Amino acid sequence: MLNIGIIGCGYWGNHLVRNFYQSEHWNLLQIADKDQNQLDKIKKQFSNLHTTTNVDELFANPDIQAIAIATPVASHFDLAKGALLANKHVWLEKPLTLNTAQADELLLLAKDRNLIINVDHTFIYTPAIQKIKEIIESGELGEVIYFDSMRVNLGLFQHDVNVLWDLAPHDISILNYITNKKPYSVNATGKSLYKFGELQLEDIAFLTINFTDGTIAHINVNWLSPVKIRTIIIAGTKRMLVFDDMLQSEKIKIYDKSVELKNKEDIYNMLVQYRSGDMHSPALSTKEALKEEVELFHLAIINGKPTITDGASGRDVVRILEAANESLKQNGAEVVL
Amino acid sequence: MLNIGIIGCGYWGNHLVRNFYQSEHWNLLQIADKDQNQLDKIKKQFSNLHTTTNVDELFANPDIQAIAIATPVASHFDLAKGALLANKHVWLEKPLTLNTAQADELLLLAKDRNLIINVDHTFIYTPAIQKIKEIIESGELGEVIYFDSMRVNLGLFQHDVNVLWDLAPHDISILNYITNKKPYSVNATGKSLYKFGELQLEDIAFLTINFTDGTIAHINVNWLSPVKIRTIIIAGTKRMLVFDDMLQSEKIKIYDKSVELKNKEDIYNMLVQYRSGDMHSPALSTKEALKEEVELFHLAIINGKPTITDGASGRDVVRILEAANESLKQNGAEVVL
Amino acid sequence: MLNIGIIGCGYWGNHLVRNFYQSEHWNLLQIADKDQNQLDKIKKQFSNLHTTTNVDELFANPDIQAIAIATPVASHFDLAKGALLANKHVWLEKPLTLNTAQADELLLLAKDRNLIINVDHTFIYTPAIQKIKEIIESGELGEVIYFDSMRVNLGLFQHDVNVLWDLAPHDISILNYITNKKPYSVNATGKSLYKFGELQLEDIAFLTINFTDGTIAHINVNWLSPVKIRTIIIAGTKRMLVFDDMLQSEKIKIYDKSVELKNKEDIYNMLVQYRSGDMHSPALSTKEALKEEVELFHLAIINGKPTITDGASGRDVVRILEAANESLKQNGAEVVL
Amino acid sequence: MLNIGIIGCGYWGNHLVRNFYQSEHWNLLQIADKDQNQLDKIKKQFSNLHTTTNVDELFANPDIQAIAIATPVASHFDLAKGALLANKHVWLEKPLTLNTAQADELLLLAKDRNLIINVDHTFIYTPAIQKIKEIIESGELGEVIYFDSMRVNLGLFQHDVNVLWDLAPHDISILNYITNKKPYSVNATGKSLYKFGELQLEDIAFLTINFTDGTIAHINVNWLSPVKIRTIIIAGTKRMLVFDDMLQSEKIKIYDKSVELKNKEDIYNMLVQYRSGDMHSPALSTKEALKEEVELFHLAIINGKPTITDGASGRDVVRILEAANESLKQNGAEVVL
Repeated sequence: MLNIGIIGCGYWGNHLVRNFYQSEHWNLLQIADKDQNQLDKIKKQFSNLHTTTNVDELFANPDIQAIAIATPVASHFDLAKGALLANKHVWLEKPLTLNTAQADELLLLAKDRNLIINVDHTFIYTPAIQKIKEIIESGELGEVIYFDSMRVNLGLFQHDVNVLWDLAPHDISILNYITNKKPYSVNATGKSLYKFGELQLEDIAFLTINFTDGTIAHINVNWLSPVKIRTIIIAGTKRMLVFDDMLQSEKIKIYDKSVELKNKEDIYNMLVQYRSGDMHSPALSTKEALKEEVELFHLAIINGKPTITDGASGRDVVRILEAANESLKQNGAEVVL
Repeated sequence: MLNIGIIGCGYWGNHLVRNFYQSEHWNLLQIADKDQNQLDKIKKQFSNLHTTTNVDELFANPDIQAIAIATPVASHFDLAKGALLANKHVWLEKPLTLNTAQADELLLLAKDRNLIINVDHTFIYTPAIQKIKEIIESGELGEVIYFDSMRVNLGLFQHDVNVLWDLAPHDISILNYITNKKPYSVNATGKSLYKFGELQLEDIAFLTINFTDGTIAHINVNWLSPVKIRTIIIAGTKRMLVFDDMLQSEKIKIYDKSVELKNKEDIYNMLVQYRSGDMHSPALSTKEALKEEVELFHLAIINGKPTITDGASGRDVVRILEAANESLKQNGAEVVL
Repeated sequence: MLNIGIIGCGYWGNHLVRNFYQSEHWNLLQIADKDQNQLDKIKKQFSNLHTTTNVDELFANPDIQAIAIATPVASHFDLAKGALLANKHVWLEKPLTLNTAQADELLLLAKDRNLIINVDHTFIYTPAIQKIKEIIESGELGEVIYFDSMRVNLGLFQHDVNVLWDLAPHDISILNYITNKKPYSVNATGKSLYKFGELQLEDIAFLTINFTDGTIAHINVNWLSPVKIRTIIIAGTKRMLVFDDMLQSEKIKIYDKSVELKNKEDIYNMLVQYRSGDMHSPALSTKEALKEEVELFHLAIINGKPTITDGASGRDVVRILEAANESLKQNGAEVVL
Repeated sequence: MLNIGIIGCGYWGNHLVRNFYQSEHWNLLQIADKDQNQLDKIKKQFSNLHTTTNVDELFANPDIQAIAIATPVASHFDLAKGALLANKHVWLEKPLTLNTAQADELLLLAKDRNLIINVDHTFIYTPAIQKIKEIIESGELGEVIYFDSMRVNLGLFQHDVNVLWDLAPHDISILNYITNKKPYSVNATGKSLYKFGELQLEDIAFLTINFTDGTIAHINVNWLSPVKIRTIIIAGTKRMLVFDDMLQSEKIKIYDKSVELKNKEDIYNMLVQYRSGDMHSPALSTKEALKEEVELFHLAIINGKPTITDGASGRDVVRILEAANESLKQNGAEVVL
């Protein structure tokens, strides 16, 4: 049993509190938040929890082995650095940091002190993404040739980052996790349709990611859609997969469809054949992703091995987001990673 | 009653033959195709039609007032020029030409001779697009702020143009027609995933169109999708519209949703409110678009007025496609129109 | 603030505990269940609650003003009678009792003692059903002419009642509530496809309810469907409504469709015209039905007025279920109510 | 090559004309219809066809080997009898006749003269129904335990039969074809919601069919639904199948779900387990059903073997419809076949 402290108990922090509280491998020692009201609400539900408005209490507490941070991105670096310097393992809300330099510093610090950093890309732990990973690794799809994601809804605006930094981390982390390919460059276009004072945060954006092996990925995110869409198409040379996260069942469909070039003459004549066969939808388990992640974080610390959403993977996501912002500034021009 | 000749009777040419044949305002005099087999098939259905493998017969026929051309894009310019020089009105399959220079020459020629050019952007004549145009003009959506289209399927490859030139003309013509806004620049990314000999035609592509007034449009096209998707989201400042052309009914849905900034303090605090209300789906007529277009082409010639898909509108589409190809070559960099 | 005790804390009882616990108008004094394990689980969540395996403690407690019963149907009568005799208001899980005779006895007892009986037809309190009621009362649909419900899934079998008594109470209570019409007779067919020892409980059944004014209702329920369907079609003379409870949004759709008989000659020729117009989907609130019901139960007791799901309405549901069972025994023959 | 004549060229007759005209095995000699206007329309499309308003010409024509009849049900018996007496093979629109007595007389006549009767239950020839038949025969579903069909829409009223005789023949013929089980009795309820003069034709009806082996089938048909639904659930002891004919793809879904009773104790305790696994949707061919049927009718005559929708199968459908009408008259009481 390990002892944990949590910093930040807003919307997502509450989920962390519930899951660490219910876990058999964690002992939730202390919760910190700047806002006493948030702490009071937590106390009502879990009367025996210790709360504080001073994060330093957590850093200073020698019984705490790990700290989970669920605060706005801008504060991630300082809080995580503080925790690492106090020799605590760190669980950080995504995205990891505001830029790669910060990420690199945290990773180095953790490495030096043999500490685990887990970036909370919860989506990676869902039964659907685990199943997709399994399908791709089995070779069922053949070689992945493109990844096309749409993640739009009428969402609450994030105040400190644009829509790419808010929504695309899901897709980028999924993309990296399931394909395990090396991204080469990115292009991003977008717009700040609702402008607020001095801030010009894009609320709609389109990201293309080019890979060294010719694979292409596209991510369409916006906060201004009347309908909620959560769809990823993953095309392989043998079969193609559609993941629709809005469906209550049959979220993953594998289509026995592909393009076939029979022989050289076909190529010369460009007579392309489409093979079109059955569709198959695998059953998914009903495990809660966050619960799973909480257990695996514990295991990673115990075994001294990185989680599947470790600091390095979180840094890869930040690197792409950083380049995407750069491309936005350059009106969509290619930015090599 | 006007006399027409048709050049090209492949897949789409057959639809033209049927519609001009059945029209009360057109007399289908002659059909030309290089392939005698195609002509024989037509003769079986319509035994009284005159056919020829020599297009010059149509140009030379003084009884023919208009010529419809349904051949590959590469041949559009020469055939249309020949028809215009023979003083025939011209109906051209989309896209109009291979580039803007060709389009400009045809437009000039037609203007000099007082001839009508109609570009067959059939989609514009569908009850759905006509209804969307009507809705936008009524002010029901407020100001259009973005347009996001997805048009993907497992389609037969086009042999002479990439997927942008094959599929995006639909979306670009719809976008121009319904918003009536001035595009400023484009970005295009994409990939040729299946390469054929020397040709490197993109089979997946993503196009961003930026408008002078800040509106943004995005078009996602590919020939390699396991599922057929035909969806356009049009967001306005007051309401938002989703058009799903794959639905058998309720193709258009208008959502009483929008973003509201109440006052200056809201802007300062970035407290954005989402208004979320009812949804409304208008009934659509069941008129055949092509039949409608055939009648309006007749009317345009009689009245000497341009069609809603005239040469100029077709030229605007080509201009954007041309710039998109340029952006593809420049790895997605912005190309100003 | 009123004091309540709850008997039975299985699946549904847990929801009652949570809602009465969180209510500002209720003080949850005591919980009874035969099974000490269930009580222990509750204690873990709500450590300050008093629990007992002896229901008589609740009846004997003079501080308790109302008792909520969430036990199997067979025990409803005795427990409710005990509560009423102890001068407690009663909240009963649906269906009210095993037969009309029991229901009548409870209703009489409550009337004599000026006590409120609320039957927990929770569905009636959902925003969707409240909206449908509002739409019908506004006259928007015209006169309701038929009601057709399908409620099927792969569900856990109920042990003591057949599928009609398990699933159809939802539909019957909705039907009675929204149409306010007088049912005249019922026909029921069905089958016990999986037979268990001596018990022959129908796991698939079809119920027709005939009304005195010619309206017809049909309810299709089964526990053996691979897909979960929750659809009700309500046709009116002016418009028609479809309620699909499985949708995450747009659960209610109102179709501007109807049948029109223009004049006497039309009738002679039976030239019926269908009017087919727009579709409209009203926004729904996100209130939790059970929370609403808990508050309205409190209000009913305070004001001495019946709830909208009072004992009489619960008795009407039982009467139809009783007749349905009779019809099943008579191989589907009509049973007059 | 066989010679055929067609009687009746309304909506469906037109499809027959087109298919027999295009077939390589049929020579369409003559078409008869009471209405000269209908014949004129046909002549416009197929200028070389012989037409007549006198059906006797077809009976008298010694070159005609088969006659297809696509007229209202009431005229089927006389026309088919005339054709058989003239030694022509007969193709009859569904349902075969107005009652079993008529059907029996036609079947006897055909048997005596070695003539083929084909009842045009076109649905049986669709790739979907052929695939379902194949799936059931493969044993993939286990034993079929129930069949539940819904076939509703806002349809043009039939003038001479009720909704059961109009829509249910599809479901009954499918049910008989795919399960090959012996129906024992029927119950039917329904209503004539729009009454026309003297006629009281049910426009909404619910049919239960009980089989000797305990299987149960239910068919829900109506002409007054705002939405078009065409769904059949077929539950087997091993797997369950859903057929949704309104979908453009994935019309058939096979769910790896079933109910399992592990051992006697389970039965005693009624501890039922649901097995829930993957879903699979087979690809379907795109053959036109009517074209297939036209070829198989030719083959049946050549080989002297019955079609899969022969007179006997058509008679079985009429028998059930007849009994359904009887049950409607008896207010839903069971009518043994």
